Amino acid sequence: MPQNKQLLLDNRPQGEATASNFKLVTSETPALQDGQVLVRHHYLSLDPYMRGRMNDAKSYAAPQPLGQVMQGGTVGEVVESRSAKYQPGDKVVGFGGWQEWSVVNVEQPGALRKVDTTHVPLSHYLGAVGMPGVTAWYGLVKILEPKAGQTLAVSAASGAVGSAFGALAKARGCRVVGIAGGADKCKYVTDELGFDACIDYKQHGDIKSMSGALKQACPDGIDGYFENVGGLVLDAVMLRMNAFSRIALCGMIAGYDGQPVPMSYPQMLLTNRMRLQGFIVSEHMEIWPEALKELGQLVGSGKLRPRESIAQGIESAPDAFLGLLKGRNFGKQLVKLI
Amino acid sequence: MPQNKQLLLDNRPQGEATASNFKLVTSETPALQDGQVLVRHHYLSLDPYMRGRMNDAKSYAAPQPLGQVMQGGTVGEVVESRSAKYQPGDKVVGFGGWQEWSVVNVEQPGALRKVDTTHVPLSHYLGAVGMPGVTAWYGLVKILEPKAGQTLAVSAASGAVGSAFGALAKARGCRVVGIAGGADKCKYVTDELGFDACIDYKQHGDIKSMSGALKQACPDGIDGYFENVGGLVLDAVMLRMNAFSRIALCGMIAGYDGQPVPMSYPQMLLTNRMRLQGFIVSEHMEIWPEALKELGQLVGSGKLRPRESIAQGIESAPDAFLGLLKGRNFGKQLVKLI
Repeated sequence: MPQNKQLLLDNRPQGEATASNFKLVTSETPALQDGQVLVRHHYLSLDPYMRGRMNDAKSYAAPQPLGQVMQGGTVGEVVESRSAKYQPGDKVVGFGGWQEWSVVNVEQPGALRKVDTTHVPLSHYLGAVGMPGVTAWYGLVKILEPKAGQTLAVSAASGAVGSAFGALAKARGCRVVGIAGGADKCKYVTDELGFDACIDYKQHGDIKSMSGALKQACPDGIDGYFENVGGLVLDAVMLRMNAFSRIALCGMIAGYDGQPVPMSYPQMLLTNRMRLQGFIVSEHMEIWPEALKELGQLVGSGKLRPRESIAQGIESAPDAFLGLLKGRNFGKQLVKLI
Repeated sequence: MPQNKQLLLDNRPQGEATASNFKLVTSETPALQDGQVLVRHHYLSLDPYMRGRMNDAKSYAAPQPLGQVMQGGTVGEVVESRSAKYQPGDKVVGFGGWQEWSVVNVEQPGALRKVDTTHVPLSHYLGAVGMPGVTAWYGLVKILEPKAGQTLAVSAASGAVGSAFGALAKARGCRVVGIAGGADKCKYVTDELGFDACIDYKQHGDIKSMSGALKQACPDGIDGYFENVGGLVLDAVMLRMNAFSRIALCGMIAGYDGQPVPMSYPQMLLTNRMRLQGFIVSEHMEIWPEALKELGQLVGSGKLRPRESIAQGIESAPDAFLGLLKGRNFGKQLVKLI
């Protein structure tokens, strides 16, 4: 059995997360029992939601337990199988966590899924054709419910969720405006992802400036907004939302370290008769097949060209994760293990 | 033709509204033309939404024009008619504004409606069986969508909207908790209106204290909240909302004078996958008949006993209105004109 490097949550962050919250250990992978397969992880997924689970706070998911392998999505290859359903060489997506190998009970619902890498590279099943893509799909289709010709906006537009959101929204005939940090990300958002405009929030340090930029990019106002960030960006967007507009609240990275992120103008929700809805995509498994089908077609046809930031080796995961929380990644953040 | 005392909006408030924003004038009522009736107003309705319309701000309704009669709901009696549809003596509800008489074009949709005062006193058509009651109905039925056994909460619980909300929610088998200002209002809310509990927000000056009182009154958390106030009360309630709970945002009295009323914990909307929706009931005319029918039955059968604060004479309207904004009214605020 191979040696398995693993990253554990060693202690909980006090304010900002740091590398010292994690601990690298090496263990033996256990021998397989009937119904189990051994998966070699090719990529780990790093996602902002993981920061929330590092806190010992009441939330939608139980906190990440201390002293255990950090939980997270993985793609890899079956190398040994004691199940008739999987053969060595099968490419699979699962929830193997921050480690190099995992032993999976294949009968556990949702534990493992075979994927086809003919038209979609394996890593994309952690991004555009995985949880982040489906997240964008749910927020867009089920909450924003856009009509052709409407203006939609999304924060963290160059990331895994934002980029999928853009492609899905363009496919529905909408004007799509992104918000991202830095000129290079904004250029990618418009030139590669096909957004109609992108605003560099780093050029707009206060609400008035940000709101002015939004007015220019959204001359007809904003009909739907997909929120990943919170704080100042949300405040500025709220000032540009139209009557009967909608907000899909997916993430509030701005508040993950525990600092307050008040919403400055909640009265706009009333004045504009808006609807705001928070969601997590894992509670809507019924829409995954439809969403994954559309996302796979968008990637397979080249209409969605997701970008990836790839860190090498499991030892790099903590720093890559902390960088992600600070927006240092460019596209989907992955850790490559082989 | 009778002399008609009228209150005009003379100038817009700078911060708090004051009596000097209004101006009393006397005019002649014009002679009737075909299709018109002359209505003698018995009661004027005073409602918090009027404060918002006194500002010259972009909002769902056009601002109240300067130099014109303050707009608002009225009930009264037809005293002269040049329409076959109305006879002198008919009791009617309309939108006659802050004046003693009005001339109404009866063919204008929604301008006038005949009402039956056999089981429901005329004044209640401005409250429980009028716009405030229908507002409660819409927020409860169409936004909160409660199930029997759930816990619902409402601010300004002793008011026209809150009291109707309580009766409608009890009729659906819910636990209903009110929030009101002062021991006498709270006693009325529980003893007369049949709420399960009522919290006196004046006894709780900070979020922690208010949230603690809510925890005690709502041991199973809050599944639906109907918001009339905003600010600290909303913040405290947000900390007690359950997963998949809903907020119907009807008013934010706390912010009507233009001061900021930030929402302190918008991240709870995400953590608890909440839905928040702002609305104004005049945009949902299709539900009025069904809502008015239920509300009329609740009042007729004595299950909803709305309380009224009645000021006497049109000259008293400005002070009564300013008192309403400060919560000095007790139940529906009216001005009696005869």
